[in-house]
Amino acid sequence: MKKFMDKDFILETPTAVKLFDACKDLPIVDYHCHLSPKEIYDNPTYTNITQLWLNGDHYKWRLMRACGVEEKYVTGDGSDYEKFYAFASSMPYCIGNPVYHWAHLELQRYFGVELTLCAKNAKAIWDMTCEKLANGVNSVRGFIEASNVEAVCTTDDPADSLEYHIALKNEGDFKVKVLPTFRPDKAFGIEKPDYPEYIAKLSQVSGIEIKTAGDLIAALYKRLDFFRSVGCVISDQAFTHFPYLDCTEEQATQILQKRLGGGEICATGIEMFSTFVMTALAKKYYEYGMAMQLHVGALRNNNTAMFEKLGPDTGFDSVADNILSEKLSGFFKNLGAEVPKTIFYSLNPNDFYVMATMCGNFQKEGTRSYMQLGTGWWFLDHIDGMLQQMRTLADVGVLGNFIGMLTDSRSFLSYPRHEYFRRIMCNLIASYVESGLYPCDEDVLTEVVRGISYNNVKAYLGI
Amino acid sequence: MKKFMDKDFILETPTAVKLFDACKDLPIVDYHCHLSPKEIYDNPTYTNITQLWLNGDHYKWRLMRACGVEEKYVTGDGSDYEKFYAFASSMPYCIGNPVYHWAHLELQRYFGVELTLCAKNAKAIWDMTCEKLANGVNSVRGFIEASNVEAVCTTDDPADSLEYHIALKNEGDFKVKVLPTFRPDKAFGIEKPDYPEYIAKLSQVSGIEIKTAGDLIAALYKRLDFFRSVGCVISDQAFTHFPYLDCTEEQATQILQKRLGGGEICATGIEMFSTFVMTALAKKYYEYGMAMQLHVGALRNNNTAMFEKLGPDTGFDSVADNILSEKLSGFFKNLGAEVPKTIFYSLNPNDFYVMATMCGNFQKEGTRSYMQLGTGWWFLDHIDGMLQQMRTLADVGVLGNFIGMLTDSRSFLSYPRHEYFRRIMCNLIASYVESGLYPCDEDVLTEVVRGISYNNVKAYLGI
Amino acid sequence: MKKFMDKDFILETPTAVKLFDACKDLPIVDYHCHLSPKEIYDNPTYTNITQLWLNGDHYKWRLMRACGVEEKYVTGDGSDYEKFYAFASSMPYCIGNPVYHWAHLELQRYFGVELTLCAKNAKAIWDMTCEKLANGVNSVRGFIEASNVEAVCTTDDPADSLEYHIALKNEGDFKVKVLPTFRPDKAFGIEKPDYPEYIAKLSQVSGIEIKTAGDLIAALYKRLDFFRSVGCVISDQAFTHFPYLDCTEEQATQILQKRLGGGEICATGIEMFSTFVMTALAKKYYEYGMAMQLHVGALRNNNTAMFEKLGPDTGFDSVADNILSEKLSGFFKNLGAEVPKTIFYSLNPNDFYVMATMCGNFQKEGTRSYMQLGTGWWFLDHIDGMLQQMRTLADVGVLGNFIGMLTDSRSFLSYPRHEYFRRIMCNLIASYVESGLYPCDEDVLTEVVRGISYNNVKAYLGI
Repeated sequence: MKKFMDKDFILETPTAVKLFDACKDLPIVDYHCHLSPKEIYDNPTYTNITQLWLNGDHYKWRLMRACGVEEKYVTGDGSDYEKFYAFASSMPYCIGNPVYHWAHLELQRYFGVELTLCAKNAKAIWDMTCEKLANGVNSVRGFIEASNVEAVCTTDDPADSLEYHIALKNEGDFKVKVLPTFRPDKAFGIEKPDYPEYIAKLSQVSGIEIKTAGDLIAALYKRLDFFRSVGCVISDQAFTHFPYLDCTEEQATQILQKRLGGGEICATGIEMFSTFVMTALAKKYYEYGMAMQLHVGALRNNNTAMFEKLGPDTGFDSVADNILSEKLSGFFKNLGAEVPKTIFYSLNPNDFYVMATMCGNFQKEGTRSYMQLGTGWWFLDHIDGMLQQMRTLADVGVLGNFIGMLTDSRSFLSYPRHEYFRRIMCNLIASYVESGLYPCDEDVLTEVVRGISYNNVKAYLGI
Repeated sequence: MKKFMDKDFILETPTAVKLFDACKDLPIVDYHCHLSPKEIYDNPTYTNITQLWLNGDHYKWRLMRACGVEEKYVTGDGSDYEKFYAFASSMPYCIGNPVYHWAHLELQRYFGVELTLCAKNAKAIWDMTCEKLANGVNSVRGFIEASNVEAVCTTDDPADSLEYHIALKNEGDFKVKVLPTFRPDKAFGIEKPDYPEYIAKLSQVSGIEIKTAGDLIAALYKRLDFFRSVGCVISDQAFTHFPYLDCTEEQATQILQKRLGGGEICATGIEMFSTFVMTALAKKYYEYGMAMQLHVGALRNNNTAMFEKLGPDTGFDSVADNILSEKLSGFFKNLGAEVPKTIFYSLNPNDFYVMATMCGNFQKEGTRSYMQLGTGWWFLDHIDGMLQQMRTLADVGVLGNFIGMLTDSRSFLSYPRHEYFRRIMCNLIASYVESGLYPCDEDVLTEVVRGISYNNVKAYLGI
Repeated sequence: MKKFMDKDFILETPTAVKLFDACKDLPIVDYHCHLSPKEIYDNPTYTNITQLWLNGDHYKWRLMRACGVEEKYVTGDGSDYEKFYAFASSMPYCIGNPVYHWAHLELQRYFGVELTLCAKNAKAIWDMTCEKLANGVNSVRGFIEASNVEAVCTTDDPADSLEYHIALKNEGDFKVKVLPTFRPDKAFGIEKPDYPEYIAKLSQVSGIEIKTAGDLIAALYKRLDFFRSVGCVISDQAFTHFPYLDCTEEQATQILQKRLGGGEICATGIEMFSTFVMTALAKKYYEYGMAMQLHVGALRNNNTAMFEKLGPDTGFDSVADNILSEKLSGFFKNLGAEVPKTIFYSLNPNDFYVMATMCGNFQKEGTRSYMQLGTGWWFLDHIDGMLQQMRTLADVGVLGNFIGMLTDSRSFLSYPRHEYFRRIMCNLIASYVESGLYPCDEDVLTEVVRGISYNNVKAYLGI
């Protein structure tokens, strides 16, 4: 029996241990996350682990709710200790869940705590972590720096002022690059109730009065230029239904004007409009050599009562199952020679083959895997999901070119997920070697695991 | 090499053996099956294994047909021995099929037969099983009692008199609880040819003349009260397409009246009507704290000639692949605060992520996993399918809260499937422990495997 | 650690080694491939490995492109050595990809080269293979004969003259049977731009002027008779969307006449017409006892620029994700008693359960698995894909009746894929035995692995 989460956690063979050793100390480029640049700038400190763990982490909330914990102790007015106790008490049932591993990795790495989370140990862990926060690293920047992070890409709306990115840059104290990501979902989300308000805001921020589809694109391009001046190298967009329906600029303008005039847009109009905006953006990403992230497969805010109480991103989202391949094909085919570097993610593992093989249709000379199957996302960010993503990539593409892990997280303690990923990746590659499916060439293997951990994404994004 | 199906069958590690030892003797709560209450009441006896194995088991029939066996020896007028011989002769080709394991488990557990099924051994096994039936347990109740069964939930139409459930209760001899399950598929299956006849029957049985949708719901509620008075704690419903389209009571009444008047209902009308009835039922299940089982993904009666010859449930069904997530979301969202305890099953493993994550949107305070991903169903009731279901649950939910196995069977000898499940489940949980992914805490592990085997479902259903 | 691709490649247990030993020397029946009968007849020789490996293999091209190789060195005017060097240099990143294994198997088996493909070894491997081609087997027929091939089924259009099949037969020198496959996709592909030209050609070749749907079927039947006279035992058809919509002969004639008259056919008309033609063909296959192969799930020619430059089958295809089950069910239900032997393939592993269970609905007396789930196809032709196909078949069908492997290849060096398959299959079956899930009965196991490797398909196709 392997000891629980010891130094060889997940590493099942001597080759796996050796490969992990070759990449474990490489810095982290966390190219997709939801950290708050304001918090990084303000750099608050924490006095207990509930502040760090349970104020905002919907992964943990879902597990607690699935264990029947009262909402009072999830997002309500329970005390910080009560919340922690409720979380710790839920943990023993979460066998195999990645949160179980993440939480213990964080206890080990940031707090030196080797105890397992459960009701019995809750008080001891609480005390040990409080003491550590009182006497050691306890600030946002402290945690990030202690995690050997080289760069993070936050997720930002085109209308955002990026004031904290700029302030951090100007200040110059924080050694970690904090780069904005261009996330224009609100700009093509014409079906959203607050779309007119958003357009008004974007008009104001960009200095371009948006009356036509052409104006909208001009405003977005202007904001993109601004984002790039602050260091942006990547964009992100998310879809429940990936859109592709032909749409001329005239049609897009008609749809926009109808919407801004208070009219209702049918499903076809919504899809046409999204296609128009996305196409214009993709071409600009191509021109700039920027990467385009596409996230599909999330069905959000399924519980109306909880949405009204807590808002979005509070643990009431789940996996969608829509037809994807022909829309993706149509969209990329239509881009012709202007396909940007693309990273595909789906929340539904059923899409992995569709996406991984679609990548192969649009690779580009001079870039190692210009089109990328993104790492296991959100509900797939566990051992099984990451293995399925990497095995699919290996089976139909080129695993050695993979740009690897990101946290997608709101938490300042989530960097051990990169360690978790590197262990899983090294163990997988070692399994090919140990079973005679790949030669034991240490130089090549070292290059590959260091590439997937760090070098590939650096080269891919040019940072 | 492990010996074929010996005492450590499926258990690959010392931890697996220890965990199975902790749960193997717990009683069985078979909360979803298709046993005939009449047969339990009548308690017939059997003289040969064909009567037990091959009169009604479409799993075995399909394998025989896939081996080219003449229908004469499947459901036709072949002799009982000829049928058994044809089945035994097919078995060696069925490597990896669960029927192979179930059949050998049944031979071992009920008949003490250790021979393997094949043409060569057919006569010997026939003789040994005949002799055992002549001199040992040979009755329906005998088999159930010998299987350490505490309760079974049969599957019953709302119009059913439940006379045998009542008779069994009144008689008081049989120590196993035989509880009805409310299965109202016929009540919302407005597209079925005999729908008007069914409504007439339901009117008569309920004493409520059904002329409107309101009448229908009233009649169903009345029958549900009757079912509950006979011990019903769970409902069940099955869909090829899970329905969700808004429908008012007035619209439902119009659709119903059109149908009863001989009109044809379009697909939209069918879906609206189903939504209306299912919504009304779900709210009542919620009020009563009853569990609602939802089965999706079966495409039935694909072979018309065989359907006409043999009827439904004779081995001509297969797996559907319809879009699910948005319908499920809409239905549950619309229930608002009145979501009942729900157990999701799909015949298509592609739905596991959709369902497992949908569960997370509607969990409830005070119940450990109010929303459940049901165990691998029918074509998924094998090692791979059960592992995929449990691993998905572990990855995105809380495995320790799982309510576990059911037989879904028409056979009185199918209880070793619970043993099969417990072995697989213990081996899985042990694999997490043995590989250092979960701590080796014997108390917790024992609680968990005993929970999944027995205690969780008892608490969940309140029986 | 197992040595890289040594004699026990993939074989993880003593039982696996023993089973592979029992089947490895059996001949190959390659019942689905894309070899050119003209090339077999002409029997050209090769002087370097680029001619054999890189002139036409889109699997390799995709990997090179995914590594950022310039198109010049993929399909362009780079020298043969430059292309080989670019391929060899890409290989180290392709961990886990089947092309990695196929290429090394081919080096070992045909050239006695044990070096691994990489930039460093490129020159040495180039020299060794050139030398071997200069002094050993170097012709199309030589490679096929050296591969212990008994028969190949090529893929041929109904309008094809089959002149090379006939010439090979008449010549009588080549001991390997080269049989045509009836592939009528062009005959039902009414949406294709060159459909009228195709119909003109088919009219001419068949001697039946095609003016009605009845004429078309008569012409196809006539060609099928001709194909059968040249040894055809199997048909093949591929669909992005599997069609099923009721269509009378009158309707089919109207659609055909509209199309031939220059009209445009809507999606419904296309599907109706395909259904009509496919139904008529399936019934004839049934009458003749021929096998019908159905391929679904490929989305072709996604990159317009490259399609215009290089044409089809050049590496720009990917996996589709369309709803399948109800169309399949409708089509087969409608065939009634005239369902032909069918082999289902999908490029999307999500379809495996749908297809494997659909098989069970239409099995036939007297044939071991009349309906077959085909082996992992194209993007699924790797260890994971083949295991998923075989495990699904084992779980819901009868693995022992499986008709096994085919190359689907355009290459004369691709026969080691049969060896690859046999190793994977033997290792899987051995894993059931080694873990106590199947008895260690050497006679039965030998029969089974020899069946799946060779005997089953011989009996199934009657060749």
